Amino acid sequence: MDPIKSHKDLKGKIEISSKSSLSNSEALSVFYTPGVAQVSSEIAKDRDKSFEYTWRKNTIAIVSDGTAVLGLGDIGPEGALPVMEGKSAIFKEFGGINAIPLCINTKDTDEIVKFCQQIAPTFGGINLEDISAPRCFEIERILKETLDVPVFHDDQHGTAIVTMAGLLNALKIVDKDITTAKIVISGAGAAGISIARLLVKAGAINIVTCDSKGAIYAERESLNSDKMQVAKYNLNNEKGHIHDIIKNADIFIGVSKGGILSSSDIENMADDAIVFAMANPTPEILPDEAKKSGARVIATGRSDFPNQVNNALVFPGIFKGILNSKYTQFTDDMFLTSAKALADMVENPSEQNILPKVFDKKVADIIGGAILSL
Amino acid sequence: MDPIKSHKDLKGKIEISSKSSLSNSEALSVFYTPGVAQVSSEIAKDRDKSFEYTWRKNTIAIVSDGTAVLGLGDIGPEGALPVMEGKSAIFKEFGGINAIPLCINTKDTDEIVKFCQQIAPTFGGINLEDISAPRCFEIERILKETLDVPVFHDDQHGTAIVTMAGLLNALKIVDKDITTAKIVISGAGAAGISIARLLVKAGAINIVTCDSKGAIYAERESLNSDKMQVAKYNLNNEKGHIHDIIKNADIFIGVSKGGILSSSDIENMADDAIVFAMANPTPEILPDEAKKSGARVIATGRSDFPNQVNNALVFPGIFKGILNSKYTQFTDDMFLTSAKALADMVENPSEQNILPKVFDKKVADIIGGAILSL
Repeated sequence: MDPIKSHKDLKGKIEISSKSSLSNSEALSVFYTPGVAQVSSEIAKDRDKSFEYTWRKNTIAIVSDGTAVLGLGDIGPEGALPVMEGKSAIFKEFGGINAIPLCINTKDTDEIVKFCQQIAPTFGGINLEDISAPRCFEIERILKETLDVPVFHDDQHGTAIVTMAGLLNALKIVDKDITTAKIVISGAGAAGISIARLLVKAGAINIVTCDSKGAIYAERESLNSDKMQVAKYNLNNEKGHIHDIIKNADIFIGVSKGGILSSSDIENMADDAIVFAMANPTPEILPDEAKKSGARVIATGRSDFPNQVNNALVFPGIFKGILNSKYTQFTDDMFLTSAKALADMVENPSEQNILPKVFDKKVADIIGGAILSL
Repeated sequence: MDPIKSHKDLKGKIEISSKSSLSNSEALSVFYTPGVAQVSSEIAKDRDKSFEYTWRKNTIAIVSDGTAVLGLGDIGPEGALPVMEGKSAIFKEFGGINAIPLCINTKDTDEIVKFCQQIAPTFGGINLEDISAPRCFEIERILKETLDVPVFHDDQHGTAIVTMAGLLNALKIVDKDITTAKIVISGAGAAGISIARLLVKAGAINIVTCDSKGAIYAERESLNSDKMQVAKYNLNNEKGHIHDIIKNADIFIGVSKGGILSSSDIENMADDAIVFAMANPTPEILPDEAKKSGARVIATGRSDFPNQVNNALVFPGIFKGILNSKYTQFTDDMFLTSAKALADMVENPSEQNILPKVFDKKVADIIGGAILSL
């Protein structure tokens, strides 16, 4: 199937359906005027009733400014729309959630914050998508402080959770401990920073995060506040290029650019190395090459290799959980609990099998259930 | 059926459906990653392709700030949501259009304008709803100037078009001409002002519009620009209370408050009077009383009397038409053409039958077709 032709034929991957047939006078007078006036009046008196009388409790907004879409970068709101439609289709198919793509033509942090605050009364939650770093961190931070509906930045937390889940199983296979492992992250955008933070919550203490200038360390010039934070995780204050930093690492996590690692980089890692090369569509190193160079557990972002690390495993379930819970905001505990629940779904983790399949319809219920049990 | 219980049971009148099953690896790789990247790249190069490859061409936003909802007034965005869901269900059921309710918590003109400009790349059109006058006029005006997707304020134009359609048939019945009729409008909000403007486009020259202070005339103090415009339609510069103004009128159009007219008001009108008492839920005068007092053709906004003037007859079709047309913005010509097409659907107009039924599924196609034939 050709993607262009398939999209052109389908004319949209999602649509609105009416749950209430309005084809007769009684239905119209109950669900529209005059009956709906009574419902609106009740909500005006108690706004929380909007969660009971409308689709709000099961409906979220997918908000994107189109600045960090897939590997394509800043392609604008219209370009982001087919991706957000795809997310919406996945939200529905795997989580039963209505997710409305809202691709907006502003890149201004304050305006994006304001936009989300303005639409909040219509939705049960907000899923931020493909907003480039470092704006995404501040936007999420302000929204979590000011809104009483949950806010989730999928590129950060969805990626971090599914990466953590895969890593938990990979560590079982190689019999290593997250608290003593040396971890190298390549990429200090939304995903890299968020993965580093979640690893620390899970007990990791030795994480060197690299951006295009090499290792991030405390004294490096012009670090923004988010990079300053991950600099603190650089246990031995390592400096230099990724090719130096990766030496003796137990774990490599790539959320950066295709092909940046060579065979010798993998050979220089510790024994039983774990390599998550998740750049899309071209991984930091191809699985075959990593394997030949001694890596033991290898994962990528792609569906045509084993161990696909795909945040579609996370976002339907984590929203299903919180929308049905008493919680109004996501927490790190929820993220770790979700990662563990996802990891535990794989009964006997093996080198070729560290994560559930995206098509496993139990995933969303299990992650959702884990959040409800908190 | 109790509206509260019915809404509680249904938990939302609309939902998102996935048109593309993503339950297998091939579909997921075509409609989501990696295939969707190709589609996004094409759109990034030519943004108009978003109308071809996504749901945009058939999808509109329903934007409301909840300030003028039904007869309830300013009840807030959450309170407006069940009404907008109902509109969305009607858009789908009668026009086949995806309409997304976006109820926002700002009443600021500039902010509402900016909000609509921000979401425009996601939608094929914007339907403004239940935004109070006079802000609604300025918001619509700026958006029509700045956006390349069509903008429609239903409370203005939907109401004006369906009123005009009913009036065209009522005039046939009483054998009067719009160009010589004396018309009195009660209510100078979004609907009243817009009806007056469309009547002028249709050839009316003698229209006295009244607000709560009585007739609007050129020298009256503190008129805003919209009221100054309708003051020009006051042919004989009439002043005073509606009870004075209605004397000898051929047509009364009420979009104001229930019960403001008495029997003697109707008795004072010209012979063969036309009375559109459209205040909801209580009309300006009840049909029985108007009839007894000599009115010949009577219409209301209610479904339990003959001749319901309901803009649900208009909004699905007018959007269906423009979304399928080459036009990027609504025009007065389209409004008049739609009104005529709607009126012409009634083969033999009679006192009890001046408009098609809301449930007639041909309506949207006929209005849509009328726009396409322009």
